[in-house]
This record gives sequence, C-alpha cells and structure tokens, in this order.
Amino acid sequence: MQQSFQNRIPKTSSLRRYLPILQWASSYQRSDLVGDLLAGSIVAIMLVPQAMAYALLAGLPPQVGLYASILPLIIYGLLGTSRTLAVGPVAIVSLLVASGVAPLTATDGSNLLQLALTLALLVAIIQTVMGLLRVGFVVNFMSHPVLSGFTSAAALVIGASQIKHLLGIRIPSGEFFDTVWHALTHLSESNPATLIIGLGSIAILSFFKNSLGKWLQKWGVAKHIALPIAKSAPLLVVLLGSLAVWLGQLDQTANVAIVGTVPAGLPSLTLPSFAPAVWQALLPTALVISFVGYMESIAVAKSLASKRRQKVEPNQELIALGIANLGAAFTGGYPVTGGFSRSVVNYDAGANTGLASVITAVLIALTVIFLTPLFYFLPNAVLAAIVLVAVAGLVDIATLRHVWHYNKADAASLLITFGAVLALGIENGILVGVATALLLHIWRTSKPHVAVVGRLPHSEIYRNVLRHQVETCPHVVAVRVDESLYFANTKFLEDTIWQLVYGSADVAAVVLIGTAVNHIDASALETLETLNHDLRDAGVTLYFAAIKGPVMDKLRDIGFVQQIGKDRFFMTTHDAMLTLNCWQNGNK
Amino acid sequence: MQQSFQNRIPKTSSLRRYLPILQWASSYQRSDLVGDLLAGSIVAIMLVPQAMAYALLAGLPPQVGLYASILPLIIYGLLGTSRTLAVGPVAIVSLLVASGVAPLTATDGSNLLQLALTLALLVAIIQTVMGLLRVGFVVNFMSHPVLSGFTSAAALVIGASQIKHLLGIRIPSGEFFDTVWHALTHLSESNPATLIIGLGSIAILSFFKNSLGKWLQKWGVAKHIALPIAKSAPLLVVLLGSLAVWLGQLDQTANVAIVGTVPAGLPSLTLPSFAPAVWQALLPTALVISFVGYMESIAVAKSLASKRRQKVEPNQELIALGIANLGAAFTGGYPVTGGFSRSVVNYDAGANTGLASVITAVLIALTVIFLTPLFYFLPNAVLAAIVLVAVAGLVDIATLRHVWHYNKADAASLLITFGAVLALGIENGILVGVATALLLHIWRTSKPHVAVVGRLPHSEIYRNVLRHQVETCPHVVAVRVDESLYFANTKFLEDTIWQLVYGSADVAAVVLIGTAVNHIDASALETLETLNHDLRDAGVTLYFAAIKGPVMDKLRDIGFVQQIGKDRFFMTTHDAMLTLNCWQNGNK
Repeated sequence: MQQSFQNRIPKTSSLRRYLPILQWASSYQRSDLVGDLLAGSIVAIMLVPQAMAYALLAGLPPQVGLYASILPLIIYGLLGTSRTLAVGPVAIVSLLVASGVAPLTATDGSNLLQLALTLALLVAIIQTVMGLLRVGFVVNFMSHPVLSGFTSAAALVIGASQIKHLLGIRIPSGEFFDTVWHALTHLSESNPATLIIGLGSIAILSFFKNSLGKWLQKWGVAKHIALPIAKSAPLLVVLLGSLAVWLGQLDQTANVAIVGTVPAGLPSLTLPSFAPAVWQALLPTALVISFVGYMESIAVAKSLASKRRQKVEPNQELIALGIANLGAAFTGGYPVTGGFSRSVVNYDAGANTGLASVITAVLIALTVIFLTPLFYFLPNAVLAAIVLVAVAGLVDIATLRHVWHYNKADAASLLITFGAVLALGIENGILVGVATALLLHIWRTSKPHVAVVGRLPHSEIYRNVLRHQVETCPHVVAVRVDESLYFANTKFLEDTIWQLVYGSADVAAVVLIGTAVNHIDASALETLETLNHDLRDAGVTLYFAAIKGPVMDKLRDIGFVQQIGKDRFFMTTHDAMLTLNCWQNGNK
Repeated sequence: MQQSFQNRIPKTSSLRRYLPILQWASSYQRSDLVGDLLAGSIVAIMLVPQAMAYALLAGLPPQVGLYASILPLIIYGLLGTSRTLAVGPVAIVSLLVASGVAPLTATDGSNLLQLALTLALLVAIIQTVMGLLRVGFVVNFMSHPVLSGFTSAAALVIGASQIKHLLGIRIPSGEFFDTVWHALTHLSESNPATLIIGLGSIAILSFFKNSLGKWLQKWGVAKHIALPIAKSAPLLVVLLGSLAVWLGQLDQTANVAIVGTVPAGLPSLTLPSFAPAVWQALLPTALVISFVGYMESIAVAKSLASKRRQKVEPNQELIALGIANLGAAFTGGYPVTGGFSRSVVNYDAGANTGLASVITAVLIALTVIFLTPLFYFLPNAVLAAIVLVAVAGLVDIATLRHVWHYNKADAASLLITFGAVLALGIENGILVGVATALLLHIWRTSKPHVAVVGRLPHSEIYRNVLRHQVETCPHVVAVRVDESLYFANTKFLEDTIWQLVYGSADVAAVVLIGTAVNHIDASALETLETLNHDLRDAGVTLYFAAIKGPVMDKLRDIGFVQQIGKDRFFMTTHDAMLTLNCWQNGNK
C-alpha cells in the first residue's frame, strides 16, 4: 500500500520545483493572455498609489514603494508557485519597517534608505534559507488568535501613524497611546485644507470600496469594465487631490504638505549595508517581517489556489518571496510580500499565470520612467487616506467574539497580543503573544481531562461515571486520561490517581486506560515507574488497558512492559475488569 | 456518582490544612517518640558538618549553614505535610546562592550575608505565594530530562568549585571550564598537607557510604546502632581532620586553610535588604531556587510518604518551605529546602512526625551554643570532601542512556541543558533547558502521526493502510490524526490532506477521523473551516467521523456542525464509509 500512496503525489523534477515558470510557460495559451493582461493592469492601477502610500507609512520616500514593485514582482512571477498572488509593499510589513529602522535612523535621516535595503536583504536571506531547509512550518507556531490580535492592533498603530498626515500637524514619534493623546489634544491646530482633502479622499475611497461595485453590478456593467472602475479609486483620489493642490496652489497658500519631486527613471543598483552591527540591530525586525510577511502571503495564496484546485508549495513560496526581497534590496526597494486585497483582485480579474505579475511590474516601470512628474502636487493626506481605508478592515472584532465564545484561553492570547502590541510596541507585542499562546497550550494540556469510568450495564463499553449510569467496582479504579502523557501533565495525573486511592481504603487496583494517549515522553515514563512503585508500597497494583500500538511498542522496547509484568497490560478495559474479578458473573 | 467520588477525598478543616501539626500532635503516642528521637539525632549528626560544608559552597561562613538548620527546621516540623522530610541547606541550592550573589558582592564581601538573607526572603515570598495561589503545578514545566541534565551539570560545577579547597590553591572565580582548566594547569602548586587531608577524608567518607553499611548488616549489628555509625562519617572526618591540624599545628607549619573562629551562641535577629534594586537583581536566582528547591523537596517527600500510604499536599509543602525560608531570612541563615539523603536517613531511622525535625533543630542549636570552639581547627579540605562525596552520586549517566534509548527529543533536551549549564552558567543553562523542552514538545506535536486508514476485510475495523492489509475506496480518503488539533499542527494536517487530494483526481471525499483528537483550538477550528471551504471549491467534500463527545459539544456550540451540515458527521468511520458507498454490498 505504501507504494500506491506515494504514487499519488505527483513527481516534479527539481528544476521545475525551483523554477515554477517552467510549469506554466511551456503550456501557455493565447487565451491565458487576456486574463493576465487585464489582471496585471488592474493590479498596477491599484498598486501605484498604494505603493507610494505604504512607503510613506514606512517613513520612506514614495518612489521606494514604486521601486519595490518592479523587480520583486518579476522575480515572484518566475519563481512563485501561486499563479495569482500579487506581491509588493503591504501595510503591516511597512509598519514593521518603520518601527524597526526608526531607532537606528540618524537624526538627519541620511541612512534611512540603506536601513530599509538592509532589512530587505536580511528578510531575503531568512526566507530563502527557511525555504531551502524546508522549515516553513515553524511559522505555524503563531496561532490564529495571536495573528488576529496582532493584526487588529497593528491596524490601529498604522491608523495612528497616519493621523498627522490627515490633520496636517506634527506629532513627535512615540508609542500608540502617546500618538493618539497628542493628536486629540492638538486637534485644533489641524490644517483645514489638508483635512478637507483627506476626509474627501476617505469618503470617495469608502464609496468605491463599499457601494460602487454593487451598483455597477446592479446596472449590468460587464465585469471586465466594472472591475477596473471599482478598483481605480486610489488612482482617482490621487488625481483629484493633485489637481486640487495644483489649481489652488494649496501647497503655498494653504500650507498643504505634498509629495514633491519624485525622481524619474528606473532605480539604479543599490547596495544594502553589510556592517555586522547593523545586521544585528535589524535582525529581530527582519525575523518578524519574514514570519508575518510569509504568513499573510501563504494564507491568501493557498486560499486562492484551492479555488482552482491548484497547489502552492509552502517552502518554494518562501524561496520565491526571499529572492523577490533580494531583488528589492538591490534595486532601491524595501521588504515586500504577497498582499491580500491586490491578490484577490488579481484572481477576480482572471490572472492565469505569473505573467500577470510581470505585466504589473512593466506598468509600474513605465510609470516610474514617464509619470513621476504628475505626483509632484500629490498631497500626503491623500496617501494617508489610502492607507487608512486599506487598514480599516483589518480591525477584527468578529474573530474576538467568535474565539471568546469558543475557547477562553485562545481569546486570552488574542487580547494579550492586542494589548501588548499597543502598549509595548509592535515587535515586543508579537513576542509576548507567541509566548502566551505557547504557554497557554502547555497549561491547557497540563491539566488534561481525566475520567473515572464504569461499565454501561450489560455491555463491554466503559464511560465516564460522572456522565453515565454505569456500574463500578469498589476495589478497582479505572481511569481514562484524555491527553498524551508528557512532562507538564504527568504530575497532575499522579496527583489525581493518588487522590482516588487515598479516598478509599478499599482500592486495591488502578487501571490506566490509554485510548487517548498518543505519546508518553521520558518524564511521563519515569512518573509511571515511580507511580507503579509507590502504589505497590501502598498496597495498590497498577494495570494498563488499551494502550495504543506505537506507544506499546516504545514501552516494550525500553523494558517497561517487562518490568511491570506483561500480565498487567490488557488489550481492552473490559479484559482488565474481568481479570480483576469486577463482574462476578463475567460478561453478564 | 459525582457525590460518591467527592466523598472519597477526606475533608480537612482549613486550620488543620494550614497547620498539619494539629493532625499528628493530637494523636501523638509515646511509641512515636522513640523513632522521632533516634531519627532527629542521626540527622543532626549528618547535618552539622553538611551545613557547614554547604555554607562554604555557597561562599558563606560556616555558621550560616548551622543557623539555617535551626528555626527553618522547627517551622517545617509544624507546617510541613511530610512527616519525614529533612529540611536544611542542600548542595544545589547552595550553588545557586553562590552564583546568584557573586555578581552583586562588594569587593570586600561586606554585603554577602545580607544578599543571602535577601535571597531567602525572596524565596520565602515566591514559595508562599505560589502555595497560597495553589499554582505549585507550574514546577512541572521542568521535565525530568531537563532536571537530570541540570542536576548532572550542577554536580560538576559544584565539584569544580571545591577543587580549590581540596588542593589548597587559589582559583579565580569563573565559569566551569575556566575553573577546571586553571586547576589542571596549577596542580603542581597544590598544598600537600591539605591534599592529604582532603583525599583521606574522601576515602573515609566513600568507605562509610559504600561499604560499611553492608558490613555492619553482615555482622548482624542492630539497625538502631548500625545506622548512627554508618551516618557518622562526616562527623568522623571533621573530628579527625581537626585533630590532625591541632596536633600538627598544620595551619601554621603547613599552611592548611582552616575554618577559624565560629561565633558561639544562637543567631540574633537579622534583617534582609529591602532595596528594590537588590530585589530586582536577585529575583531570577530566587525564582530558580524556589522552583528547583521545591522540586527536589516534593519528589523525596512524595516518594517517602507513599511508602506509608501517607499524603503530602503539594501546595501546603510550598507554604511550609516558604515560611521555613522566612525563618532563615530573619535568623542569619540562607535558602533551605528538603534534602534527599538526609530525608531518606530520617525515614529509615523511623521518624514518625514533624517532632523529629524539631529534635534535629534543638541539637543543632545546642551545637551552636556549646560546640563551636571545636570547629576552629577544622580544615576547609574536609568540608570540600564532604561536598564532593555528596554530589558525586548526582552525575547521572544512567538516565541519559535510558532516555536516549527511549526518545531522542528528550535526550536532546537533557544534553542541551547539561551543556548549557556548563557553558552558560547555572541559571541561563536551566532557562535554555526549559525553553528547549517546551519547544521540542511543541515541535513534536506539530507533526502528528497521520494515518490513511482502510477496512480490515469483513469487519467494521479501520486500520493504517501502511501497517495492515486493508480495503480502501478510490474516491474516499479516510484520515486519522493521532493528536489534538491546535495551532502548531493544524497547517501540517491541512498540507497532508491536500497532498492526498492532489495526488489523485478521483478523490471526491475526505473523512477526518477524530478518535485521538482530545481538543480542537480556535486556530484549528478556523483551519477546518478554511479546509472545508477550499476542498469544496476543489470539488471534494469533507466529512467527520468518531469525533469525541466533549469536542463535538464545542463544535456544535460554536455553530461549526450546523455550518458544515449535521449529515457530514458520523458516529463511526464505518458509518461514514457506508454512507459514501464505499462497500457496494454494504456491511459485507
């Protein structure tokens, strides 16, 4: 049987595995091109303003966001196993960049760009190495509640960081609560023109996001026309905002902050820092970006791929994102990953292959070469509005409510992560969250469900005495423990058994039922040896029933079965109870 | 049934719970006194030299060890639930004290005593609070392999710390490898008289420890005479060593280091430091002492109690040890706990109640009042020999061999802890060990055993296709996962299922079998929702079979069952396979 199951997994040559383009390029059809062209173009329309806005969020000049949207996208198009993932700057990674480089930035900001490049290089190394070592699974140590709490808090932090652009005031950099407090106490200093442009942009973006799509659908507009229109809102507010400033000379008359000169032309080759001290200082941030970026990316890639019964290969995805970041590091960009909203649009617009990603990159390159003068009058408030509307949806109350209802420990880890990110900052917050989730898991399994069982009358079925009307046997306690036995819970089991034994002078035997025990670690084994020994000293004999095959193999292998005595292990609970003379008339 | 099981646990009034002396004092019998007197006296004979030796190990004057053996023992006698535990200075806690106070000690050592008192106070607070909060179970997060690796490495570190006393040379304080290297390269500078006294003491102690007991038994010497003789070796070498120095004036002629003046009289009231900075600096050490000390203590207390079918109450033990340490903090002592070897002797000598502990304390008090002049000529090398022989048995190769054979992950955590303690020091080492064990546990459960199952012919029993000759069904994959589903393994399960689905275009249904799933956390629930959704998009239906009652309750409660559809949940795997038309002739 082993053979046939292995055959089910399609064989891939290693060249094809590491260069997924070979899988789709050879079978590329003309019909694929229509979807790729449309999707690539719509994503480019979204990406131009978003890339500039996210660069602003990261504390970088707007062109850095555009540069990060050229070579990385081409690389991902060639190496990625998802055919619809749209890679580029995203909000949370941009926030992480901002918080990571801020403490290292020289007062004149001269090294800011190089720090961002270095961060991209470190992320590239981490992700590629993780992919090659095939250890992508470690990102799973961040639980969904932790990720949800982190994302919600990060969205609030991002929102807070954009208030200054929206109000047109200066806010000294600081933690979340400081920023919000400062903004609230300086509301009256807002720049009216900036505020009007910002709020107007938010209104337009919200309308496009929430209502326009449905209206166009109701009016029967064809999808390939409706989709570009619905998704052009960021571009529209960019145009309207720039036009307003230019016509009204608002940058001079009303002191509206604008983007200013964006250099024209493709990025030149850039070099990140190779100073060990810089690497060491940026490493924690790079690790967090590598993990969080990958998780965001793989989640949407998997979800979209499954809709077409396609497959994404997690470790190759790490390599593809890693090398895309390498591209960003050497072409004036900053860390990138697969973004949720643009990927969904890419999919909806019919992207069939990585070519869509390449088309987006070409359009961004053309924008950088020819269109940057158009962005001179672009108000920062418009970019802030784009960020705010994008992250507003990330604050996730529904998950909290759901998780709270389902499992209080999970809800606690969500809330602790949320609070820690706001109070301790973005990186410490996520560390606290991950540690909390791990410890809560250990804590939960350290007090497993233990049931004393009895026999359902006239049967061989044993059930919890607290839940069922069952027959018990005064001199035998049959205990089922619903958890693997390992160091954190083994003492709990021991205490529980002693409590049952001490409770009655009649008890002469304890039967430990192993139907739910998937593993017994060395600590638990030692505890079982001690327990057996101590129970014997107390005049009580320990028996085992229904131990699973692989667990039994290990117990036999280490000599535990021989030490205890083979006759004290039974295939089933019923066998044990019969042998211990519990039911006088046998199998009645 | 609930009622009857609760009745099995004996009710104790809360006064009796917190003052266990009330349990034995009211029923104290004259026959108990013989055992208590003999045991208390023998333990005192052992404790006088050990207490001084361990104080030396902790870097403290010898009388501190004696002071720590008076009030704390009386307190434990009144509050402890173990009737045979012998509390006082022990080797590993003394080492922890040495490593914890060393970095804070003034160059003239003037604040050393106060730091030790403060450490005792902090340990008192931590243990008492843990006991009152009933969270003693958290000490279980240290697994047996971690504890074994820690103990072995600590024994080596202790041994290394005593070399200087044995050789009579100066060794600058440093980490383990530095100390050993320095000793090896300065062997030729040894003080011959000191070395002879030290090695002679080791020879005598080893003979008494390994051979004398058996000989006395063979010669038919009664136990109540043989035991005091066998256990008087430390006292004997103290007398012989002191005599040799006094007679030969070796302290002056041969430069043998001696204990010197030990102040006479009971300790006066002492005050620990209450400076927040000192508390903060000592807190990590205090935490480690609280945990390690409690673990050593509770292990031996439980083991001895079970032999007489008595009970120790873990949380009351924490309170008793905590208040014993409070006593140490205010009477010139340092942190104490229940020691292994003295407790076993106490038990063997027939200690019946806490009165034995009180008798030991009275004898130590009399020693401090009347006998301290006798210790003037005591060579440090004798105390070093006592420590060395005591810790030699702690290096534990057998556990490593056993664990290595049983479980490589456990063996790895043992070796990593061992190496980390030697290389990084005693406290960092234990932290590394605990973190390693937790992460290895998570790692193990993150890749659970997943079996594709088929039907044993002509039965309703389903078994792993790789292990048994079973019938499978081409359009249905039945998967059993042998682990609870939670955030660290949920993606692994998802990937495994997709691999099976992608491997064949025939698959139309996946049956997930939950017989070994004790818990599904919020992350796993979300993954199941996503998986169900994505599989549906791929034309595959997800079914569930044999989900456990409590898990099913939660899934129903959160609406998952209704969302998926009740008809997709089956009581047994066989029900599912029949409904999915796997076996054309039904239950053949």
